[in-house]
Amino acid sequence: MLPLQIHLTLPPWIGDVADAMRRYASDAERVGLAIELSRHSADHGGGPFGAAVFDRDNGRLIAVGVNRVIPQSCSVAHAETMALMIAQQRLSRHRLNEPDGYFVLACSAQPCCQCYGATVWSGIDELLIGARSEDVEELTAFDEGPLPSDWIGELERRHISVRRDILREQARTVLAAYGTSGMVY
Amino acid sequence: MLPLQIHLTLPPWIGDVADAMRRYASDAERVGLAIELSRHSADHGGGPFGAAVFDRDNGRLIAVGVNRVIPQSCSVAHAETMALMIAQQRLSRHRLNEPDGYFVLACSAQPCCQCYGATVWSGIDELLIGARSEDVEELTAFDEGPLPSDWIGELERRHISVRRDILREQARTVLAAYGTSGMVY
Repeated sequence: MLPLQIHLTLPPWIGDVADAMRRYASDAERVGLAIELSRHSADHGGGPFGAAVFDRDNGRLIAVGVNRVIPQSCSVAHAETMALMIAQQRLSRHRLNEPDGYFVLACSAQPCCQCYGATVWSGIDELLIGARSEDVEELTAFDEGPLPSDWIGELERRHISVRRDILREQARTVLAAYGTSGMVY
Repeated sequence: MLPLQIHLTLPPWIGDVADAMRRYASDAERVGLAIELSRHSADHGGGPFGAAVFDRDNGRLIAVGVNRVIPQSCSVAHAETMALMIAQQRLSRHRLNEPDGYFVLACSAQPCCQCYGATVWSGIDELLIGARSEDVEELTAFDEGPLPSDWIGELERRHISVRRDILREQARTVLAAYGTSGMVY
């Protein structure tokens, strides 16, 4: 018999960090949550990456994600894909902004090649980034993978605006602590 | 309360098409299965894409996938990501070929930008492709998204070999039938 399903979960400590009742109003509050998730993930033995999806219009938090690759035996289960999949299932929409709305994906670090592609189909309107890929590759052993040379332009042409270097130093601090912890991903 | 999990399933007809006991020995048999999955998926109202993961050494089928974007409200749930995630969970490995083995991902059509990135982290050794991206975009309304200009070279440098145009005409036939069916994805 071939297996016909997949089940992915987030860790139980998520509720200690992400507040479903809070309104996250600014870029810094949104990326700040993603960085806090990345820090807790690393502290709990996971990959040092966090992401969150927000409704821009009211600042409401729709879903969060952290890297679950190793505990779930799933290379797809990055912070960004977890947050996007859970947000889409929560809203019963395969594109978050169809038929309406304006959604933001905030990431502790620039999405890798897989999550970059995933954002293209996700129905987000805005991508907020903490650390750059070069920070990830400088401070940890992670590879970010191959991207189109004009990766920001390709997103903007698809009506996804990109802002980066938001709380970059704070995001770098988490990556640096992970990179020197001796943990191998 | 924030949702903390995601559950994705394949349709119940999979067992009518994919044979867990058969040995799929050649490139044509492997891509042929992916194309048959794409055809059945389209016939059952899904996206016209199929994929399968094989153990090269014995021809054993590890997992299959079809496009589940709309029924599961999940833009990540493409045929390739479904097959890779299910194969990895089945083998309890987040990289299929670690610590050992040689794994093949066969696709009815060239992976889009998201699935391209997903293959990089998946631990496959070989990517087999039926239809090209230009076939998909010529024959259907699907966009394949932005890729690195030397996308094949980037995979080969990461020890993933690529062979394409396998049963290309057969794969094109499924896409053409879908494209003229009036179904909108």
